[in-house]
Amino acid sequence: MTGVTGTPFLVVDDERLEANLARVADRARDAGVLVRPHAKTHKCVEIARRQIAHGAAGLTVATVGEAEVFAAVDEVREIFIAYPLWVTPAMAGRLISIARIVSLRVGIDSAEGARHLADSLHEAGDGGAPLEVVVEIDSGQHRTGTSPRVAGEVARAAVDAGLDVVGVFTFPGHSYGPGDTRARAADQEITALAEAAQGLRANGIEPRVRSGGSTPTVGFTGQLAAGVLTEIRPGVYPFNDAQQVEIGSCTFDDVALTSSSTVVHRNGSRIVVDAGSKILGADRPAWASGFGRLLEHPEARITALSEHHAVIDFPADAAVPALGSVVRVVPNHVCSAVNLVDELVVDDVRWPVAARGRNS
Amino acid sequence: MTGVTGTPFLVVDDERLEANLARVADRARDAGVLVRPHAKTHKCVEIARRQIAHGAAGLTVATVGEAEVFAAVDEVREIFIAYPLWVTPAMAGRLISIARIVSLRVGIDSAEGARHLADSLHEAGDGGAPLEVVVEIDSGQHRTGTSPRVAGEVARAAVDAGLDVVGVFTFPGHSYGPGDTRARAADQEITALAEAAQGLRANGIEPRVRSGGSTPTVGFTGQLAAGVLTEIRPGVYPFNDAQQVEIGSCTFDDVALTSSSTVVHRNGSRIVVDAGSKILGADRPAWASGFGRLLEHPEARITALSEHHAVIDFPADAAVPALGSVVRVVPNHVCSAVNLVDELVVDDVRWPVAARGRNS
Repeated sequence: MTGVTGTPFLVVDDERLEANLARVADRARDAGVLVRPHAKTHKCVEIARRQIAHGAAGLTVATVGEAEVFAAVDEVREIFIAYPLWVTPAMAGRLISIARIVSLRVGIDSAEGARHLADSLHEAGDGGAPLEVVVEIDSGQHRTGTSPRVAGEVARAAVDAGLDVVGVFTFPGHSYGPGDTRARAADQEITALAEAAQGLRANGIEPRVRSGGSTPTVGFTGQLAAGVLTEIRPGVYPFNDAQQVEIGSCTFDDVALTSSSTVVHRNGSRIVVDAGSKILGADRPAWASGFGRLLEHPEARITALSEHHAVIDFPADAAVPALGSVVRVVPNHVCSAVNLVDELVVDDVRWPVAARGRNS
Repeated sequence: MTGVTGTPFLVVDDERLEANLARVADRARDAGVLVRPHAKTHKCVEIARRQIAHGAAGLTVATVGEAEVFAAVDEVREIFIAYPLWVTPAMAGRLISIARIVSLRVGIDSAEGARHLADSLHEAGDGGAPLEVVVEIDSGQHRTGTSPRVAGEVARAAVDAGLDVVGVFTFPGHSYGPGDTRARAADQEITALAEAAQGLRANGIEPRVRSGGSTPTVGFTGQLAAGVLTEIRPGVYPFNDAQQVEIGSCTFDDVALTSSSTVVHRNGSRIVVDAGSKILGADRPAWASGFGRLLEHPEARITALSEHHAVIDFPADAAVPALGSVVRVVPNHVCSAVNLVDELVVDDVRWPVAARGRNS
């Protein structure tokens, strides 16, 4: 690896990455829905280009800063900021600049937020309606998003404020969990988007965009498409991670990103490696078996995590990696891991994490 | 704020920062121990300089990459990599370069690690002993570090391998917790370092460095110094964070770093702000009340955290911040938060986070 003189660092398995991109593209094509991948996961220009090459309709992002990075990529023609932005005039100026080079769509989830967006765009000198607006719906995660019941009213207020409302979107964040969690979330997503779409129609607004989906519900794409969705926005699928393995949405063979890490301590059936929360992220949902997994040692568990230490316990009878050996750690949540590094190592090249840290 | 056109971003309260630096410096001076602050918390050249100006003996870091950043700062003359490094010849070359410009000390915690360090230094062309070595002791966290019982043997092996062993160190990571956790950890630290020091002496090695301490045990500095310690290595104290508030090692008035964040959603006694795990970090120990706190709203709890959302619940009768208002979020673990941004906003200037992402 050119220039790598110490662990830990994040490595991409290019063959697995390609297989993951192709699998989701095929599934969506078969089901007749668009894929608008969430670029917050990879934050890399190279992967964005490949997603477009695989037929993605454009990209989804979480922040204005991410939109700025990807709008500068020639192949990317459409960007959706899937977030209920509270838009100040300064931010509106940035949105207008982005909308000059790509087709831009943003989220709102309240009448107040819609009016504030319209006012700020006006103040920042928008001479028309440079962007499209979609209304965020709460399909069960209870984070942002309006109740599907009142989506029509919010959309109406946005149109009255002069905005171009084109549909509805939701994120089934509650699809992350064991058992039948994913299937239930997919059902709720369909129900919520269908009710919200009906609300828009009742207010004279055609909901031509009905956007949902996530990596955990990618396996239900056919059902989502048949139900009501026009597009899915999975993020994690290019890489996958330990969370996806543990909820059953992929296997270890589908994991395309790991932290190359050195065993710095060994004591009986316990080792400590140099990958901690500053390269893996500290994400650890209650249902997870630990703070990540080891790609070649599914029997091991990461029982504690510090900034530069992962404490890993093996079953009493297992073969334990030697002091100084290098192991591949699968992060629990790959979006967090990627956002901690400046570059991903891919065979002999490095891919800059171009949108790393673009939180605003 | 120059050039800040959107939230979230991390803001430093300079007056509180100065008070925090002075308080720990005074306490150590009174107790007669050195302070060797851990720079992994702030990763900023400006704060390193101030710590030295307040009398710090040098800096502690976690990685070779951090050491490289701070060795380039004129005021920094001593650097301690408080980690049981597994040193390859390539890393040894980097250590030798660092040791040419500052006095360098590194950790080991096994005879095998010591011999590997010595061999790699030799292979990388070291013509003498360019660095000092201290043996890491496990004082109860059960992460890295050797048992105090066998510290003397490890030190002996290191000396036999040609290394310059100057003492012992521990990190009381188990000092993070509610109730009397901190006091118990301070006691264990003293006991472990005293036993380890005795072990070195029994092997004919003078343990002139006996290093411990952490921000949670800073309040026990007098006791640590009287017991056995020659220096403390707190990291978090310049900023403090929600964890320190909740374990009782500081108050909200001592918190010098927050995420300036906008309320993007409001529903009854619940709000959602735009600071998520990508600016706060996802750290959430079992004993914590949530994923961080609000500086001006101690009654609120961050009950869920996504990458760009913090879900915050208020008591039913509390005044809830308005949609679009800006609140100050205190991260649970400030070391994680700082490592997510390129700059800290301090009044009208920005401090680069120079060692951000230097994991190796």
